[in-house]
Amino acid sequence: MTTDPIPPTPVSKGRGTVKPQLLSGFRDFLPPQMLLRQQVIGILREVFERHGYEPIDTPALEYAATLTGKYGEDEKLLYRFTDHGGREVGLRYDLTVPLARVAALHANDLVLPFKRYHIAPVWRGDRPQRGRFREFYQCDVDTVGSPSMLADAEAIATVADALTALGFPEFTIQINDRRIISGLAKLAGVPDDGAGQVYRSVDKIEKIGPEGVRAELIERGIAADAADRVLELVTLRGTDAEVLAELRRRAASFPEVVAGADDLERLLGFLGGFGVPRAKYALQLSMVRGLDYYTGPVFEVAVERPKVGSIGGGGRYDGLIGSFSGRDVPATGFAIGLERVFEVIAEFGLLPPVRTVAQVLVAIVRDDEGDGVAEALRLVTELRAADIRAEVYLNERRGLADQFKYADRKGVPLIAIVGGDERARGQVKLRTLATREERSVPRDAVAEVIAGLLEAGR
Amino acid sequence: MTTDPIPPTPVSKGRGTVKPQLLSGFRDFLPPQMLLRQQVIGILREVFERHGYEPIDTPALEYAATLTGKYGEDEKLLYRFTDHGGREVGLRYDLTVPLARVAALHANDLVLPFKRYHIAPVWRGDRPQRGRFREFYQCDVDTVGSPSMLADAEAIATVADALTALGFPEFTIQINDRRIISGLAKLAGVPDDGAGQVYRSVDKIEKIGPEGVRAELIERGIAADAADRVLELVTLRGTDAEVLAELRRRAASFPEVVAGADDLERLLGFLGGFGVPRAKYALQLSMVRGLDYYTGPVFEVAVERPKVGSIGGGGRYDGLIGSFSGRDVPATGFAIGLERVFEVIAEFGLLPPVRTVAQVLVAIVRDDEGDGVAEALRLVTELRAADIRAEVYLNERRGLADQFKYADRKGVPLIAIVGGDERARGQVKLRTLATREERSVPRDAVAEVIAGLLEAGR
Repeated sequence: MTTDPIPPTPVSKGRGTVKPQLLSGFRDFLPPQMLLRQQVIGILREVFERHGYEPIDTPALEYAATLTGKYGEDEKLLYRFTDHGGREVGLRYDLTVPLARVAALHANDLVLPFKRYHIAPVWRGDRPQRGRFREFYQCDVDTVGSPSMLADAEAIATVADALTALGFPEFTIQINDRRIISGLAKLAGVPDDGAGQVYRSVDKIEKIGPEGVRAELIERGIAADAADRVLELVTLRGTDAEVLAELRRRAASFPEVVAGADDLERLLGFLGGFGVPRAKYALQLSMVRGLDYYTGPVFEVAVERPKVGSIGGGGRYDGLIGSFSGRDVPATGFAIGLERVFEVIAEFGLLPPVRTVAQVLVAIVRDDEGDGVAEALRLVTELRAADIRAEVYLNERRGLADQFKYADRKGVPLIAIVGGDERARGQVKLRTLATREERSVPRDAVAEVIAGLLEAGR
Repeated sequence: MTTDPIPPTPVSKGRGTVKPQLLSGFRDFLPPQMLLRQQVIGILREVFERHGYEPIDTPALEYAATLTGKYGEDEKLLYRFTDHGGREVGLRYDLTVPLARVAALHANDLVLPFKRYHIAPVWRGDRPQRGRFREFYQCDVDTVGSPSMLADAEAIATVADALTALGFPEFTIQINDRRIISGLAKLAGVPDDGAGQVYRSVDKIEKIGPEGVRAELIERGIAADAADRVLELVTLRGTDAEVLAELRRRAASFPEVVAGADDLERLLGFLGGFGVPRAKYALQLSMVRGLDYYTGPVFEVAVERPKVGSIGGGGRYDGLIGSFSGRDVPATGFAIGLERVFEVIAEFGLLPPVRTVAQVLVAIVRDDEGDGVAEALRLVTELRAADIRAEVYLNERRGLADQFKYADRKGVPLIAIVGGDERARGQVKLRTLATREERSVPRDAVAEVIAGLLEAGR
């Protein structure tokens, strides 16, 4: 939106034609991709609902004033425009700010704590490169109205359950607290205006190592001993309890850090209670989340392979709803980025590819009386009534060869054929595409036989 | 977008707060509404897939050039803007033009005939009144690449099946042909520049009656005898075959009208073949569809009650894909407007209201050792593992009364309680909210008992 070259305006070719093209960073999903997306979204919905999160939806467009002042420097990526009524509007940038707006607007209609999930597209005018898109889906679970670490633990447990349900071979949910992060700079004696530099450098520790972070901090004008103190803190070793105890000891005079450590201890305890396997989460004091609105625990989930980095994140934002309602309402949640999830699914082949919804093609066998069409329509209608996904080739003027080719190219597993011979004998011929095997089946048993073949072919 | 008054810009109240508000014509869907929407969309998807339509998705934003020149005078309702890269873009106005763009852009990846469904929001800057919204869902089934009336009949059969699956007590799919409509004016001797007036008046025949249409035509400068000829044609009576035969006789010198009548005859025959009940469709020569891109049969589905008018429409548009690719590809389809469908569902109470996804609230019984929380988390995790949608109240500092109130207000049907006594006896207390009945159940049978109660309570 900001930096990529402007592609040529669609040009006419021939009389009145417009070149068909997609906006850069936007995608079409053709059936095989869309069937996979529906499958994944179905699994996520099921897990979210099993955890008691309720679905909501909000408009694609919001008043620009609703969206601004929430995302820090990324705000420049907002899709903003002036509508025909002169209103400043914007396409939603995430699902968290709309939730906060909903919680403020519909305060009287919501039972608190309000647990909601929202699976929907968001829009960002990012540079469309390296697997980044300008339109992509987020899948969020959030709780509005609870200050308890149970709400944070529930969000983390839900994401762990969701990624497990998708078959992820490994993932780690890193956990930290915004109050600890902001305390770090103070603890190290870094002046306020250098704090941002400290966060940004520390966040890179897994990429460039402690030495790299130290060098960068010093290069950015942080005193060497302050840099060392920061590094000592974020690389504390031991059990979670030991690390948090040591942090509390060193930060005894920073009540915010101590409160953060206390909350994390409670949160980690609840994770065990929810049955989240210990290997799936880690206290990670160097992990920093970029958004302005976090106030407490923050989370990020990453995989080792493929190298896509974070596939989701979240945290507590106790001040965001108050920015709309003027009344503080605590809230916390976790967002999964669907596009990264698909990269993991593709890398490991986690879900079987599906090429088509159709289970049977009923072939039309032409005859002079036109009975072939009527017979095919009758059969396809019967199969559908038996809950079989069936179609006829939608052109009665084509021969069987074309119809077979169609089924083959689409990947329809079965073809049902009722020619004159079959009709005379009260039979239907069934052809299995994978094996080219054909069998004759009594007309009145055909739905049952097909159901059996489809079950077996799974 | 064009005419409604500009609402006040969001104002700050207190320090830095932004008034939470929705753009006019846009809606939030809270859980009870969203659960209903998901249920309806699920039914539509199932029916569409049973008919062999495959899902696709396309971007919310398209190049403005893709969208313009397709919608006639309604084009002024397009949400258009200039993005940060200087591109003229627009929010999609329907799902048909994006499909045509897809069919042209991905021509090499699609197996023809290509049957797709698309359930997604579209945006129109309409006056937000009388149940009209600026963001609303359309549910489309279309076939690209078949000139056969089988494709039109399949779309109609699918919509009939879908509305039946939703439990619609009645609906009528009106069928006409664009070539017959445009032939009407010629047949009546109305000059070309008066044709639009003829269509618009004739389309009102069900509202204002033949006499009303006649008066309006004459008022608009159409000669009385021409008006009479038009009215005679659109009110022809008899069986479908008789009406079409009479039309062909009177329009023998207008090959377009004859071709339209021939196609409609084939189409009506196929509808019978697909098992569409005769009461569900009607030849309606006065029915006019407004969009510019139709070229053959057109459809519209309406209900008598409530008075919402058309709940969907469609038709054949053999020229639209060619406007992108320069190569003619026939196409036809049917779109259902989801918001009108909900009005019918509400009117007749067709689907049971669902207030919450949660089936069980596991109450937290506080004790001094904190075992109450651990026990509740253990139980909720077990229930989820047994595919029961279960939650704990996400604030361990609240008492049972608050938790009961929460379950009651949300409509969670069951509460599971494990206090110290129950723990000692290896039991769980189950409370049914509707009856306030309580029963004690062995701890290891609780998932099974809950599953039974939920089944019985349906």
